[in-house]
Amino acid sequence: MSDQAFMARALQLAEQGLYSVHPNPRVGCVLVRDGRIVGEGWHRMAGTPHAEVHALAAAGELARGATAYVSLEPCSHHGRTPPCAQALVDAGVVRVVAAMQDPNPQVAGRGLELLRSAGIAVQVLEGALQQQALELNRGFVKRMRSGLPWVSAKLAMSLDGRTAMASGESQWITGPAARADVQRLRARSSVVVSGADTVLLDDARLTVRAGQLELPEVQKQLALQRPPMRVLVDGRGRVPFDCAFYREPGAWLAAMRQPLQPLPEQAGLLLLPEREGHVDLHALLLKLAQEHQANEVLVEAGARLAGAFLQAGLLDELVVYMAPKLLGSDARPLFDLPLLRMAQAVDLQIADIRAVGADWRISCRL
Amino acid sequence: MSDQAFMARALQLAEQGLYSVHPNPRVGCVLVRDGRIVGEGWHRMAGTPHAEVHALAAAGELARGATAYVSLEPCSHHGRTPPCAQALVDAGVVRVVAAMQDPNPQVAGRGLELLRSAGIAVQVLEGALQQQALELNRGFVKRMRSGLPWVSAKLAMSLDGRTAMASGESQWITGPAARADVQRLRARSSVVVSGADTVLLDDARLTVRAGQLELPEVQKQLALQRPPMRVLVDGRGRVPFDCAFYREPGAWLAAMRQPLQPLPEQAGLLLLPEREGHVDLHALLLKLAQEHQANEVLVEAGARLAGAFLQAGLLDELVVYMAPKLLGSDARPLFDLPLLRMAQAVDLQIADIRAVGADWRISCRL
Repeated sequence: MSDQAFMARALQLAEQGLYSVHPNPRVGCVLVRDGRIVGEGWHRMAGTPHAEVHALAAAGELARGATAYVSLEPCSHHGRTPPCAQALVDAGVVRVVAAMQDPNPQVAGRGLELLRSAGIAVQVLEGALQQQALELNRGFVKRMRSGLPWVSAKLAMSLDGRTAMASGESQWITGPAARADVQRLRARSSVVVSGADTVLLDDARLTVRAGQLELPEVQKQLALQRPPMRVLVDGRGRVPFDCAFYREPGAWLAAMRQPLQPLPEQAGLLLLPEREGHVDLHALLLKLAQEHQANEVLVEAGARLAGAFLQAGLLDELVVYMAPKLLGSDARPLFDLPLLRMAQAVDLQIADIRAVGADWRISCRL
Repeated sequence: MSDQAFMARALQLAEQGLYSVHPNPRVGCVLVRDGRIVGEGWHRMAGTPHAEVHALAAAGELARGATAYVSLEPCSHHGRTPPCAQALVDAGVVRVVAAMQDPNPQVAGRGLELLRSAGIAVQVLEGALQQQALELNRGFVKRMRSGLPWVSAKLAMSLDGRTAMASGESQWITGPAARADVQRLRARSSVVVSGADTVLLDDARLTVRAGQLELPEVQKQLALQRPPMRVLVDGRGRVPFDCAFYREPGAWLAAMRQPLQPLPEQAGLLLLPEREGHVDLHALLLKLAQEHQANEVLVEAGARLAGAFLQAGLLDELVVYMAPKLLGSDARPLFDLPLLRMAQAVDLQIADIRAVGADWRISCRL
């Protein structure tokens, strides 16, 4: 087997942490000696051992003389766990292949440097596997590089681009398979953001539901231990505190001032500056990244709030669930987005279209 | 090779007539003796020999004792060409396998009966190949069974379901590959129908352009000999007769009365009853099927006329070209379609989604 094949396996392992490792990156590690895999590992949850530690433990004495394939440069700093680069040195690994450097410009290359200075051969792959590694941790990479999280907007629409009837009636546009897919989207996110319209209309909780989360058992149990923060953007205090949203743990209110009524005991407050009469969404994302280490933020909101994120240029991705029906020309638009000329049209790049039950999921980059 | 494999080949041959045989059905024929194909043929154009005649001519004396695979029951009537069932008998064919009966209930089974009474073994396939045969001639089949043509609406929209800016600006939502695909849609249609809005706004001609029709050379040359009728629904006489639409051959005006100005010499008139102040679209389709033998009608119109066809329940299929962009919430809707409740939503069945250049083509059945 080639370097590429072993790295593909390391990435496959890393993906197993998709739903539980935030705020850390998803990382997998494979140890290979004499062409055979002697140890594998993946990072499960922040505060627990890194991928390399699991792989070294699995390999035991067989790690001596082995090559380590890691989906991300091994860490060189003492965090909640000791540095992995040192652990690889100590175990007698002779070669390390990484799919990408650490995306934090402050520390990038230090882990590799530590390995090199210990006499270990070090290689960073380029090409498709590196792309895959970057994609797997797109939120972590963006936060490290820019201080902002990766932001996806999830929308459910009809073929004619409508999200609800004029009355607001919207349950259910899409079918059960699409709704189960949304559960996985929520579970992989650090934060789910919604607005007063959505929470008031549907009494939405925006939680990850154990009964609806279809994942392999290991991933499911880990995901349920790390549910996303749920943030309600409600600058005008329209949503009463006794609604379903606030009754579940992990609820946060994003507002411009302290509410008049006391917040429910288990809810948090994100105090934010005002921008044109509304909560400043850029400031919200900055705060989520910097104070709450949010890698991936999922916006599940109506046309108004989703449109505000879009118009502020804050969205990285749209995940559109398209139902095979027409809701008609009076129904609500996908985004509040007033444009006059074709030249102002927002260009998208469609990354993926696939069937999800009777609906279709369209993933686009902005 | 099996019956299925030879019939698949007959259907492949039939498809070669996709762009030129209307008002006839697309038909292919394969003659097989001792497990080997000894003759093949497909119908090229109305008034020219049928598929069976081509195949018999290719086989010559080898037809004696052969099995004939035909995608449609051989004809038993003297039309512009002699009956094919008799030709198969005369050539000494001993077995005939058809993918479907003649869809005309008046004559269905007569061709097979003629063959049987001549001592020929006859079989009509069922299952996937019959479905494919029905699909290939869905327009002909629908006209024979119901007296109406198969009607497809072609629409070009943004991801958010908009077809033009509020000003009407719409060129070009989709890219060159989608526009080339539309040329093929037009070429396979018996009739292209449009409305005054579209023709006035874009000075649209709705012709098949030789320079933009990407097809194998044989199909292209045949298609250009059989361009579709172009019908402009303009009940109020809004489109002046000196526009591009009327300057090309094959232009027809669909209206409720004789126009005040004389029609251009090469243009035709379809006089139709009125229905709620507009041209009666059901009557238009009946006339196109019954007086002009239209099998497939392509509606290329704006939200108003396309919406009228939809609301009247006259559409069989939508062919939506979706561009990866957002035109915003003030832009024009896909259909004028006022609905109040989710329960009124129009259900679609998505038959196919595929990339066409940077755009995506979504084919739905109603």
